[in-house]
Amino acid sequence: MGVFCGELLMKGSLVAANTGVLHMENIPMIAAGAGLFGLVVAFMLYQQVNKVKIDNEKVANITEEVQKGAMAFLFAEYRVLAVFVIVVGAALTQLNDLDTALAFFGGALASVLAGFSGMRAATSANGRTTMAAKNDGKAGALAVSYNGGAVMGLSVGGLGLLGISLVAYWLGAGEANPDLSAAAGFGMGASSIALFARVGGGIYTKAADVGADLVGKVEAGIPEDDPRNPGVIADNVGDNVGDVAGMGADIFESFVGSIIAAMIIASSDDFGGADFTGASDYIMMPIMLGLIGYLASIVGVFSMFILKNGKDAAAALRNTTFIAALLFWAGGYLSINQGLIDVEMGVMHSVVLGSVVGIAIGLITEYYTGIEPVFGIPTRAIPHIGEMSKTGPATNAIAGLSVGMMSTFIPIILIAAGIFGANHFGGDDFGLYCIAMAAMGMLATVGVTMTVDAYGPVADNAGGIAEMSGLGSDVRAITDELDSIGNTTAAVGKGFAIGSAALTALALFAAYTAAVGPDNLDLTLTNPMVVIGLLIGGGLPFVVAAMTMTSVGKAAGDMVVEIRRQFAIMRESLSNDSSFEGDLEDATTWPEKVVAGDMTYPDSQTCVDISTKAALREMVGPGVVAVLAPVIVGLALGADALGGLLAGSLVTGVLMALFMANAGGAWDNAKKAIEQGHIDGAKKGDDAHEAAVIGDTIGDPFKDTSGPSLNILIKLMSIVAVVLAGTGQLL
Amino acid sequence: MGVFCGELLMKGSLVAANTGVLHMENIPMIAAGAGLFGLVVAFMLYQQVNKVKIDNEKVANITEEVQKGAMAFLFAEYRVLAVFVIVVGAALTQLNDLDTALAFFGGALASVLAGFSGMRAATSANGRTTMAAKNDGKAGALAVSYNGGAVMGLSVGGLGLLGISLVAYWLGAGEANPDLSAAAGFGMGASSIALFARVGGGIYTKAADVGADLVGKVEAGIPEDDPRNPGVIADNVGDNVGDVAGMGADIFESFVGSIIAAMIIASSDDFGGADFTGASDYIMMPIMLGLIGYLASIVGVFSMFILKNGKDAAAALRNTTFIAALLFWAGGYLSINQGLIDVEMGVMHSVVLGSVVGIAIGLITEYYTGIEPVFGIPTRAIPHIGEMSKTGPATNAIAGLSVGMMSTFIPIILIAAGIFGANHFGGDDFGLYCIAMAAMGMLATVGVTMTVDAYGPVADNAGGIAEMSGLGSDVRAITDELDSIGNTTAAVGKGFAIGSAALTALALFAAYTAAVGPDNLDLTLTNPMVVIGLLIGGGLPFVVAAMTMTSVGKAAGDMVVEIRRQFAIMRESLSNDSSFEGDLEDATTWPEKVVAGDMTYPDSQTCVDISTKAALREMVGPGVVAVLAPVIVGLALGADALGGLLAGSLVTGVLMALFMANAGGAWDNAKKAIEQGHIDGAKKGDDAHEAAVIGDTIGDPFKDTSGPSLNILIKLMSIVAVVLAGTGQLL
Repeated sequence: MGVFCGELLMKGSLVAANTGVLHMENIPMIAAGAGLFGLVVAFMLYQQVNKVKIDNEKVANITEEVQKGAMAFLFAEYRVLAVFVIVVGAALTQLNDLDTALAFFGGALASVLAGFSGMRAATSANGRTTMAAKNDGKAGALAVSYNGGAVMGLSVGGLGLLGISLVAYWLGAGEANPDLSAAAGFGMGASSIALFARVGGGIYTKAADVGADLVGKVEAGIPEDDPRNPGVIADNVGDNVGDVAGMGADIFESFVGSIIAAMIIASSDDFGGADFTGASDYIMMPIMLGLIGYLASIVGVFSMFILKNGKDAAAALRNTTFIAALLFWAGGYLSINQGLIDVEMGVMHSVVLGSVVGIAIGLITEYYTGIEPVFGIPTRAIPHIGEMSKTGPATNAIAGLSVGMMSTFIPIILIAAGIFGANHFGGDDFGLYCIAMAAMGMLATVGVTMTVDAYGPVADNAGGIAEMSGLGSDVRAITDELDSIGNTTAAVGKGFAIGSAALTALALFAAYTAAVGPDNLDLTLTNPMVVIGLLIGGGLPFVVAAMTMTSVGKAAGDMVVEIRRQFAIMRESLSNDSSFEGDLEDATTWPEKVVAGDMTYPDSQTCVDISTKAALREMVGPGVVAVLAPVIVGLALGADALGGLLAGSLVTGVLMALFMANAGGAWDNAKKAIEQGHIDGAKKGDDAHEAAVIGDTIGDPFKDTSGPSLNILIKLMSIVAVVLAGTGQLL
Repeated sequence: MGVFCGELLMKGSLVAANTGVLHMENIPMIAAGAGLFGLVVAFMLYQQVNKVKIDNEKVANITEEVQKGAMAFLFAEYRVLAVFVIVVGAALTQLNDLDTALAFFGGALASVLAGFSGMRAATSANGRTTMAAKNDGKAGALAVSYNGGAVMGLSVGGLGLLGISLVAYWLGAGEANPDLSAAAGFGMGASSIALFARVGGGIYTKAADVGADLVGKVEAGIPEDDPRNPGVIADNVGDNVGDVAGMGADIFESFVGSIIAAMIIASSDDFGGADFTGASDYIMMPIMLGLIGYLASIVGVFSMFILKNGKDAAAALRNTTFIAALLFWAGGYLSINQGLIDVEMGVMHSVVLGSVVGIAIGLITEYYTGIEPVFGIPTRAIPHIGEMSKTGPATNAIAGLSVGMMSTFIPIILIAAGIFGANHFGGDDFGLYCIAMAAMGMLATVGVTMTVDAYGPVADNAGGIAEMSGLGSDVRAITDELDSIGNTTAAVGKGFAIGSAALTALALFAAYTAAVGPDNLDLTLTNPMVVIGLLIGGGLPFVVAAMTMTSVGKAAGDMVVEIRRQFAIMRESLSNDSSFEGDLEDATTWPEKVVAGDMTYPDSQTCVDISTKAALREMVGPGVVAVLAPVIVGLALGADALGGLLAGSLVTGVLMALFMANAGGAWDNAKKAIEQGHIDGAKKGDDAHEAAVIGDTIGDPFKDTSGPSLNILIKLMSIVAVVLAGTGQLL
């Protein structure tokens, strides 16, 4: 069906082109229509998910509690963000113009809607995936979890395409010499929401995770995910808040950021060399690619209807993305070849190169963090960390840190190769533009890649719910398989996230130079102001990483205090309860519900509130640093220093993001490798395993809070700089 | 006496100037003479140290073993380096010219001689400091340890000044339009030795430290520094190899590197603006400052003869450096003011600014890593890590890592401020030159600052020897006090090392652009080749850090195997010895010497050999990466990419060096803070302390191997680039 749909799309496009419907000026409205169409499809998929009945009370309760907690967090977060958005919007009205401010509101709103829809669907799909695994078997469970993810994927892609297309139409992007500077406001809106969502979500999830484990497992001696632990629901909410909403906002802003950067580069005065008159097509090309990629994604998503019935679920997931990518590439080449749009073929070569680099970074990530061989090459990092765990936590930590540091190098070389190749394809006139196009290559099929990314946490949650609800081992076997596939796809997804962040930031950097104007900038490395900016910018990712790591520690501390309080109340109540026959000092003998006064314990809601409040409190600092740093440096030290700052933060941001994400992933899997018997002479429960558990905990904020925040930091600072350049205050 | 000497020096200089002796052309020979004079003084101080009699057999034996081990390592290292130096020298003869190759040999030789002299003196002074503490009290012990350090300090400064002055004289630096490109060879020689010395020394010391602890303390249950542990001597050798020889080579190359960079910048075609004819004085200025700073250092060193009798030993140490700094500043200003040399006064302002920045970085380092308040401001990092230790090793590790990351920011701002100020003082024509001069501000009084740096490990070793030899607690009290002062001076020394490395690398970067020629370079950040270089260069410090951390792990593993082997032999021998009455399973009951076959155990020599071999084997990889990376990038991707590489490695190198050094220092002191009762609710031997010990071990390779190696990496790559530019192959 996928291939058939693809052909139909292509033929339809050609017909449309020949009849003049696909005239350049119409591209934004067609893309907006496609975005809307995709959102309708997403809504239908959401209804499809909700059709699955939950006929098990425990599953229903847990699903509801998790969804309630997640929604409560989102609304609380949006209240804080509303203040931020209004303040910044007002400032933009003053400093820039009303257009930029409106675009900013639009970008923020689109990001919020995308996060909201995806989260709503993911938290509906998790328990229903559990039920489908029980009632319909693997194919059914795969379909539900995939559809749950698809709502996120299609929402992110659809809202991005719709929003940016409307902005492009509004600003007259198809006309001659358009002024697109206000479009940067849209990107800034999306980026701001993304940073807060990532940082807040990351702190939420790790505070709940670490806090619940420290009291529940360590102090009370009850197993992980035990319903008596008041922090368990918050832990499960955290998975959604961090991995679904955070990741979605991240990818959303990369997607719109790369489109905006390419459009601004193409609309700059000296684009294409002297007397170049064909800029309009280059300005439209990113939207065109977004459109083709989105339609291809929808086909990819629907191909799961057929693919789900195959034996290999992992292959099915992979193939949905491959189908979309191939259709996207074919569509892109065809659109140039058939004269739908008049750009150099090198643009599409760069797009394909970008995709290849993204996939390669994903595979390298898997090589450094995975247990299984990658393309038959046995991984060495996990056995090394496993081995070093035998001499204790210190050597485990050193090994994990060095693996993380070493793992940065090949990805950075791949990104450099991508830049080199795209610049080569673009030549002197279109080099920077083609670098932005390489980012598009990683992002245009976001509809399906984000689907696969969001599928992972849904499957993971489904497994947790199966365990907590005491469903049979056959159900657990299905959810386990789906979950483990999710881990592999997550590695590739991370590669795309970091690779696209690097290229998007670089494209935004080029957009910044275009916005300031080359005559007003001296960005040579021998200019001391550039070096000063480079150093300060280089330092910022270290600061934000430190802030977010410290925040996780503080928030986990709040959680520990609350869970201890509840355990004390439960113990006190049980000691006064003559019908209680268990052991007061052994929580595993306690009932699942304890009534004390007019409250029933465990009181999960309070823990959810604690995590929510801590996340909201702690996300402010990093967010403010990210927004203010470029403003302060730009206004105090000038445009050259700000350019240096962007370059410096790009370099260390990408490296630190890779280092932290991969070290965290490697520690996590080293622990799993010991548990699964992959490390000779080490097994679950021994000293080596204990050391590996410590490493895994060090890695928690690395991979789920600080590392991912840095991706967004560099993009947000870049887009703030582009917006700032539009004020004319820098010159 | 200090002030008197200073006045004498000044007056002498003025007389010399008026009589024409201090004519510009004569400066190199006068500086060479001063260098020689200082070396004679150093030799006299060495004899002074050796006059102290060691009338205790145990002290004598340990002192001898440590010295033997240290010398054995140095000679083995020099054999490996000889091969490297010959190969690289031959390549330079081919690629550049014989002059560059000869200068390269000279730089390598001077660095080797400085390391050798300093190490010889330090390993003589340690046991003699112990004896002086016993026989002559605090003032005597302070004098011996200080003189031991002074041999290193005056050797580093004297050989540096002598060598670079001879090179300057030889290349005709005082003449009009001299070609000084061969001088870069001298710096490259010094840098190469420095990298190997730092990496090798760092691996040696941590392999011995970690290996001896893991088997001795953990497995055999004997206390630290127990003479039955065959690894203890290697551990003590390691302190000298890493902290004395490694640090000395590091500072030596910063000193000559900053002089060379300034000379090359001043000798470039467009220096000082169009039609500028006064370049000769600017070329000579760094040597002039080196001369003044060195003479001031000698005065500072000798002021200890008076200062040692004061009550406050810490103040005495500090004051020797202050006397030297004030004399140096006064001399510098006077030399311009009196017309000895014709340069802008902004040059001296930059020098003073550089010193201030160096001191400020040192204080910040102390703030983030120290237990005691800095200028009355209580430190917060150590209590934070101490607090987080209570919830286990994972939270301790997270806290240490985040403290390390956060600690990078103020130093980077200070470095940026130094660049800003120096550039401001220099104006458009002399901005880059003045940045090099700011580095000189941190380095010109190297004779005395290095003395204070090298004093630290001598005092530390003296304490260890007192403990091992079972001397009384009154002796130990003196050595403890001297040791703890050394820790504070070490923090300031580290600040100088990192700050000067950053500014020196930046100056060398400017020298690189001068050597390539501005017309042949496009170093704007919008040039994709520059961005590619920036990314690759940014990644290299991560790679070298990862390599060196892994090496420490491997080398410690070798040591563990050997110590286990020896314990097994001792146990076997004792089991066959009917006169043995202790417990075979309790090593604390064993005799200090066990004869088995024709060998006596513990066999410290074999452990020393193991550490030596491991260090030599493992230092090759990082060294080759550092030398080859700029060559490969320069030849394959061109001068623009190479420029980007230098800037990228500068940014991440400085940040990672600060992060790793400070995280390591903070972990170390958090452990000490718990032991000393500074953390409420935690004490030696409890779980929090155990967690803190784990953090300290993670920090060992951070602060003593990987972090310091990065300082040198960035300087070495820069000077290799300057030399490569001289080949003309890049153009």
